[in-house]
Amino acid sequence: MAISSPPLFLFPESSPMEASIQASAPPTILTQDELKKIAAYKAVEFVESGMVLGLGTGSTAKHAVDRIAELLHQGKLTNIVGVPTSKKTQEQAISLGIPLSDLNEHPVLDLAIDGADEVDPYLNLVKGRGGSLLREKMVESACKKFIVIVDQTKLVKSLGGTGDAVPVEVVPFCWKFTETRLQRLFEEKFEVGCVAKLRVCGKNGEPFVTDNMNYIVDLFFEKDIGDLEAASDEILRLAGVVEHGMFLNMATTVIVAGEYGITMKTK
Amino acid sequence: MAISSPPLFLFPESSPMEASIQASAPPTILTQDELKKIAAYKAVEFVESGMVLGLGTGSTAKHAVDRIAELLHQGKLTNIVGVPTSKKTQEQAISLGIPLSDLNEHPVLDLAIDGADEVDPYLNLVKGRGGSLLREKMVESACKKFIVIVDQTKLVKSLGGTGDAVPVEVVPFCWKFTETRLQRLFEEKFEVGCVAKLRVCGKNGEPFVTDNMNYIVDLFFEKDIGDLEAASDEILRLAGVVEHGMFLNMATTVIVAGEYGITMKTK
Repeated sequence: MAISSPPLFLFPESSPMEASIQASAPPTILTQDELKKIAAYKAVEFVESGMVLGLGTGSTAKHAVDRIAELLHQGKLTNIVGVPTSKKTQEQAISLGIPLSDLNEHPVLDLAIDGADEVDPYLNLVKGRGGSLLREKMVESACKKFIVIVDQTKLVKSLGGTGDAVPVEVVPFCWKFTETRLQRLFEEKFEVGCVAKLRVCGKNGEPFVTDNMNYIVDLFFEKDIGDLEAASDEILRLAGVVEHGMFLNMATTVIVAGEYGITMKTK
Repeated sequence: MAISSPPLFLFPESSPMEASIQASAPPTILTQDELKKIAAYKAVEFVESGMVLGLGTGSTAKHAVDRIAELLHQGKLTNIVGVPTSKKTQEQAISLGIPLSDLNEHPVLDLAIDGADEVDPYLNLVKGRGGSLLREKMVESACKKFIVIVDQTKLVKSLGGTGDAVPVEVVPFCWKFTETRLQRLFEEKFEVGCVAKLRVCGKNGEPFVTDNMNYIVDLFFEKDIGDLEAASDEILRLAGVVEHGMFLNMATTVIVAGEYGITMKTK
């Protein structure tokens, strides 16, 4: 892909962090999935032989895992060890022949590549709408570098401010109690309107069950949360909460694919 | 039990909180289990008909549950609803005919009575050596009053400073990674030597599994942790941790039974 022109989109507001930008002009209008693939392939350019890699989960990360396998089979990458962030990615990687390990064996990873549901101008993320937030956070907190790959629809001014779900993984025991406490926490301590809803699936609306046999409560905010670090700590202090989907100060690079090219932002 | 003399033991160091003290001189030297029973019976004096009660877990709390059932059957207490803090206590309460409910139905409880493994002079607790810390913390964080019942051996100058276990409930996924991170957290951020060990049980040393299907990592500290609130937040920030056994600013009353009588300390 040739670098031809400056990008026509940027993060919604300026950021204190250094931004390195590349852009290209694709010949035709690309689908969202094609944009995801472009971002994924760009991220895989940072993979080097011998690396221990965190393998993300979701429709964007899937392209990265496919590409890593392709380069392994072509002999362009060698001696790669993957650490999957979900059972689904584990199955994908096994089917593609990528050698796998885990955090017990490899407590420090060289690089992780994963998608995100929201990215703010400071590279804070919302993740977990696919339900894999806990293992993703465990793996990605163990990485020297964490490249996030998204299409341009994922860029937001502030996390949660769009009204889309911020997921929280909770223990099944008395989940309704935890759901209520989460909602009240934001109404009372942060003065932010919040609706907390158990995530359900299937015909009969059974609770969605995570890889760790927990449930997900999705938080829908009426406006910006405000102090993300404080919100993070307050959520984690609730007994019954296992983890939440705000990934603060974790991403080191974000690669965004948009209709007019790729933007890369590095901390 | 007649109130006859001031107690011959007190909390190991002075506390800024008001202490109300009652004492008695038992006729003979009592066993540890008898002391636990005395503390439990004293706590049940605070139970009133119509209350929603958190029912604790462990050898001391068991006496309180027995006593509540006895008073119910005698008609001295009526219209009690119990919310058990473990499957074991649930079974005990069912066998004794105590009407039960849960936090979903009763998100606010009038009173909880439970034991503790350590009590510091500020009524902060270590709990969870029996493995029920998560449900205990959920229930006891929902109570208007929380009475802790212990024998005198549980009084400590500072939590963790005795070298006994401070339990942490963790997800089974890559528990070894989480175990290592917990140990390093204290060595690096708190400069406190710490050994973290997975709790095992049975002949073959299988991991101990909690009511929530998680594991327990026990932390053994070389000296006082120091800032308990900071330690709490740092532990909870580790993805993979579900909850820890430090119950900070939760107990409203502690009843201590010792060989020379009962001490009651109220916030």
